[in-house]
Amino acid sequence: MASMSSPNPEALAAEVAAQSALVNDLRKQQADAATVEEAKKKLGDLKRTLALAQNAANGGGKGEKKKERMLLKTPKGTRDYGPGEMFCREHVERIVKDVFTTFGGSQLDTPVFERKEVLTGKYGEDQKLIFDLMDQGGEQLALRYDHTVPLARYLAMSGGITNQAKLWQVGKVYRRDNPVMSKGRMREFSQADFDIAGSFDPMIPDAEIISLVCTILTRLDVGEFTIKMNHRKILDGIFEVCGVPSEKIRTISSAVDKLDKMSWADVKKEMTDEKGLDAAVADKIGEYVKHKGGRELLDVLKADAALMANPNAKAGIEDMSLLFTYLEAYKVLDKISFDMSLARGLDYYTGIIYEAIVEASAPPGFKAANAFASSSTTPSVANDTPPPAQAPAKKPKKKAAGAEEEEEIDESQVGVGSIAAGGRYDNLVGMFTAAAAGEGKKAAGLPCAGISIGLDRIFALVWPKWAEKGMRSKETMAFVMAAGDGLLAERVGLVRELREAGIKTDFLFKAKPKLPAQFAAGEKDEVPFAIILGGDELKEGLVTVKEQRWQFVDGKKVKVESNDKGTKVKRAELIQWIKDTPTFKEWSSGKLIA
Amino acid sequence: MASMSSPNPEALAAEVAAQSALVNDLRKQQADAATVEEAKKKLGDLKRTLALAQNAANGGGKGEKKKERMLLKTPKGTRDYGPGEMFCREHVERIVKDVFTTFGGSQLDTPVFERKEVLTGKYGEDQKLIFDLMDQGGEQLALRYDHTVPLARYLAMSGGITNQAKLWQVGKVYRRDNPVMSKGRMREFSQADFDIAGSFDPMIPDAEIISLVCTILTRLDVGEFTIKMNHRKILDGIFEVCGVPSEKIRTISSAVDKLDKMSWADVKKEMTDEKGLDAAVADKIGEYVKHKGGRELLDVLKADAALMANPNAKAGIEDMSLLFTYLEAYKVLDKISFDMSLARGLDYYTGIIYEAIVEASAPPGFKAANAFASSSTTPSVANDTPPPAQAPAKKPKKKAAGAEEEEEIDESQVGVGSIAAGGRYDNLVGMFTAAAAGEGKKAAGLPCAGISIGLDRIFALVWPKWAEKGMRSKETMAFVMAAGDGLLAERVGLVRELREAGIKTDFLFKAKPKLPAQFAAGEKDEVPFAIILGGDELKEGLVTVKEQRWQFVDGKKVKVESNDKGTKVKRAELIQWIKDTPTFKEWSSGKLIA
Repeated sequence: MASMSSPNPEALAAEVAAQSALVNDLRKQQADAATVEEAKKKLGDLKRTLALAQNAANGGGKGEKKKERMLLKTPKGTRDYGPGEMFCREHVERIVKDVFTTFGGSQLDTPVFERKEVLTGKYGEDQKLIFDLMDQGGEQLALRYDHTVPLARYLAMSGGITNQAKLWQVGKVYRRDNPVMSKGRMREFSQADFDIAGSFDPMIPDAEIISLVCTILTRLDVGEFTIKMNHRKILDGIFEVCGVPSEKIRTISSAVDKLDKMSWADVKKEMTDEKGLDAAVADKIGEYVKHKGGRELLDVLKADAALMANPNAKAGIEDMSLLFTYLEAYKVLDKISFDMSLARGLDYYTGIIYEAIVEASAPPGFKAANAFASSSTTPSVANDTPPPAQAPAKKPKKKAAGAEEEEEIDESQVGVGSIAAGGRYDNLVGMFTAAAAGEGKKAAGLPCAGISIGLDRIFALVWPKWAEKGMRSKETMAFVMAAGDGLLAERVGLVRELREAGIKTDFLFKAKPKLPAQFAAGEKDEVPFAIILGGDELKEGLVTVKEQRWQFVDGKKVKVESNDKGTKVKRAELIQWIKDTPTFKEWSSGKLIA
Repeated sequence: MASMSSPNPEALAAEVAAQSALVNDLRKQQADAATVEEAKKKLGDLKRTLALAQNAANGGGKGEKKKERMLLKTPKGTRDYGPGEMFCREHVERIVKDVFTTFGGSQLDTPVFERKEVLTGKYGEDQKLIFDLMDQGGEQLALRYDHTVPLARYLAMSGGITNQAKLWQVGKVYRRDNPVMSKGRMREFSQADFDIAGSFDPMIPDAEIISLVCTILTRLDVGEFTIKMNHRKILDGIFEVCGVPSEKIRTISSAVDKLDKMSWADVKKEMTDEKGLDAAVADKIGEYVKHKGGRELLDVLKADAALMANPNAKAGIEDMSLLFTYLEAYKVLDKISFDMSLARGLDYYTGIIYEAIVEASAPPGFKAANAFASSSTTPSVANDTPPPAQAPAKKPKKKAAGAEEEEEIDESQVGVGSIAAGGRYDNLVGMFTAAAAGEGKKAAGLPCAGISIGLDRIFALVWPKWAEKGMRSKETMAFVMAAGDGLLAERVGLVRELREAGIKTDFLFKAKPKLPAQFAAGEKDEVPFAIILGGDELKEGLVTVKEQRWQFVDGKKVKVESNDKGTKVKRAELIQWIKDTPTFKEWSSGKLIA
């Protein structure tokens, strides 16, 4: 980091502005990655120097007072969800849970934190993103990073035998990553997982899970989506055939996984410069991983004698053949893209891996890459043109240890990314069982496969549609008012009866409110039934009900004007009267759309 | 702590056993608290010495290998919930959420962790139970301790103005307390909160919340319950009238709060010995706080001239009078106990406070104490008999800083405790607004009242009833089988159609399973409809449906034997056929009881 003996904040601020403009220009000109990176590094240094200089300038004077002010915010990478958003999120969660149980799943819940050793060594390069708890005496704890490792721990504790083959979990998980809030990339985020544990005939559970995720994404109305699929054994076979040393296979695999966000040139650079792979080996890999397509891609692979001679590749290709047969029975073939560059970062996968992406969520390079994919219906593994360079979407840079500077991420360059991902992990439960049994003990494993659905990313896709439609944020059906002298006891009495009958009801918390104030309170929540109590009417056993409607015009909710003076209804018959209205039936059937 | 120069593990183990027996004897004999405490302290010392000695003995030899074994467990004070339990918990949560929305509430969600300064200084003596996150660079974070402080932070961030007066939250909160797992006292636990924010006419929101909690507890079928109520201003008034120095009011208040678990003698001891209160002042307090009763207790207080001359007490008593009027309109008076010893530990309450307890949840002393309460319908504030000593239920001892020794808690001596609690906190939002505005700034507050429902404690009451009834742990309605040669594609095809029609369906993940194996798989989940595909029947467009039933006999689920050979149904009409059965209708109406 640059350091100056007598920094001048104003001059530094000007330098920061100039450097920032330069970085933007370089980006627009699609300058090569190294140049952009260097310019950005300088920008970062300048910003830190400026911050120090400003701090020093404030230190002696008025800065003191400012320090005492509390910063009212949620922690970095987290956020609150208010009423309207939660109404939408509950709707999303309800659909996901309904499909989980429709597919025969049983729910599991594990703690938000685990003993540190449970989480250590399972995530590969993502390991460093784990949130640790402070040592306050006792166990070393950390926040869970996903639902898969806690599930495996649970299954191992159950002795590797589970009474239920299908388990699902919905809850928050935590990663100390660089957040891109607008796209649903958070440090605290919600995942819905569905896993199948047990020894069954090959590829049937895997097909079941792909059918499950297709059903959920279809019902959630996230728009067109694609399930990208690949197989770890095919990838490993390719790496072996191309000559990757065995100890480098996982790290090279994680470089390949970045092909959806980085150009081949950058990925190759990472393989060779950062990871020390021979350039010729990298080029061979490039030939294989550029292929995307459908079932017919299997024929191309089967024709590759070198690949078929590799036991890993052969096993993976056979699995894929069987899987395609089952996916046809599930009628989801049109959603599938066999994508040989898909690798997934996590260490624990052992077989098929998959990832769901939606058109709307893809980074800018997505459409072009897909066009290439659809043109490769007759791919050739011996094709010598390298994969096309994709738009240089900025890859979030790794954070320096200890530094908490907000990374400069150009949000327009980042898509929602995959909205669901998973795969087969046959060894994870066995790893726990073996670790618990002690060194050298052999332990029975438990084959598993599962998927994680990113609820925040789905929310980021669904919420704008809800907001556009001007959805209500609650379901209150009746608002009880008094025309007379407050009538608080009478209002409370009727509210109580309506609620007891299952009618969501509210009233204004004033002892003697005026009628317009009560109407305004009910209208704020767009409550359809205004129920008005009057002293004389009440004596006759009557109340007045006025149904109110709203329209969404030019992005604003407007009450539909009406000359309706209301309907007089017998108080004793009010509950049934409301329940018989089309409006009430529509809402209680779950038809929530305004 | 005792320390020995040459400890002998065997001899120490014998000493521990003897001391443990002594402690139990003393408890049975209801020996005085100090004697029991001393014996327990010695027991703790002996145990620690034994652990050290055992450690030392293992250090040189075989202990090494053991250390490498992973401990497969959830962190202290947390647990997993498996399928059957989660089915029950979802049922509890669904009822709670339904009542929340029936009362006009909107959902809010805040992060599981907050910036440390947000949580600091709001909980009083409980402050030390906060879980901190490790400093990994950046913000100092801690896990939330309740939903109230995050809600206040949210409201302050919204500028103290909320569009929705009624907000609810359901989620996990964290306390580094001593767990009593069997009673639902956990370090990670689920709370459901409902709060009303805004300036309304006095006591109407408070009455609304008490009506809400009565509705929830009635619908949850937790058994008989009581809402204990008191008012912070009445308590403060009493402390002032009795002569408690103002700086000691909160700490004396938290001592009074322990009267439901400790005898008056022990509470007085805490006030005088630990907290330095004059014994005569303590005795005066004792006269007031022993009173429990209904509305008539207000007349007794109003007749106390010294109390009515205190502005705090007078204001509190007037609030209580008004509240009782409203609770009558809500028809919940029979649930209320005005309990002058109720104080609640948290610092932020400013007005009425309440706590729901159930018969089944109370510690052993509860019945006796309640008998005393019901006999005090005409209490006298000048009565000079002290409150009766209750059964000396063991109070969890405060943990020494840094020590993580499992405290010895006799679980049979601990009740589930309060299952819901809350009150009015008019200054908390204003505290945040003021802190954010900086020193000396005046900020508008936002009056609030709310309740927290302890979902784990409710689960601890409801779950044994479910387990007794032998409830299912999932709702799968149909299991598709093949009588012929596997028919995997045909099974998958039908499964897919049934699921699409909303019928929860499963099948066995084998390519060519035998029929008995498929029946066994369906029966494990107690699936009511077995649907059998046969090659010839399928050609005729027919399937066989066999409805199966289970009984719960002597604590075991038994399939009801039947000679029914099944019904042949047209495949094209199968979905409607199933939906028309009483069994399907019963399940889809939410009538889950087996």
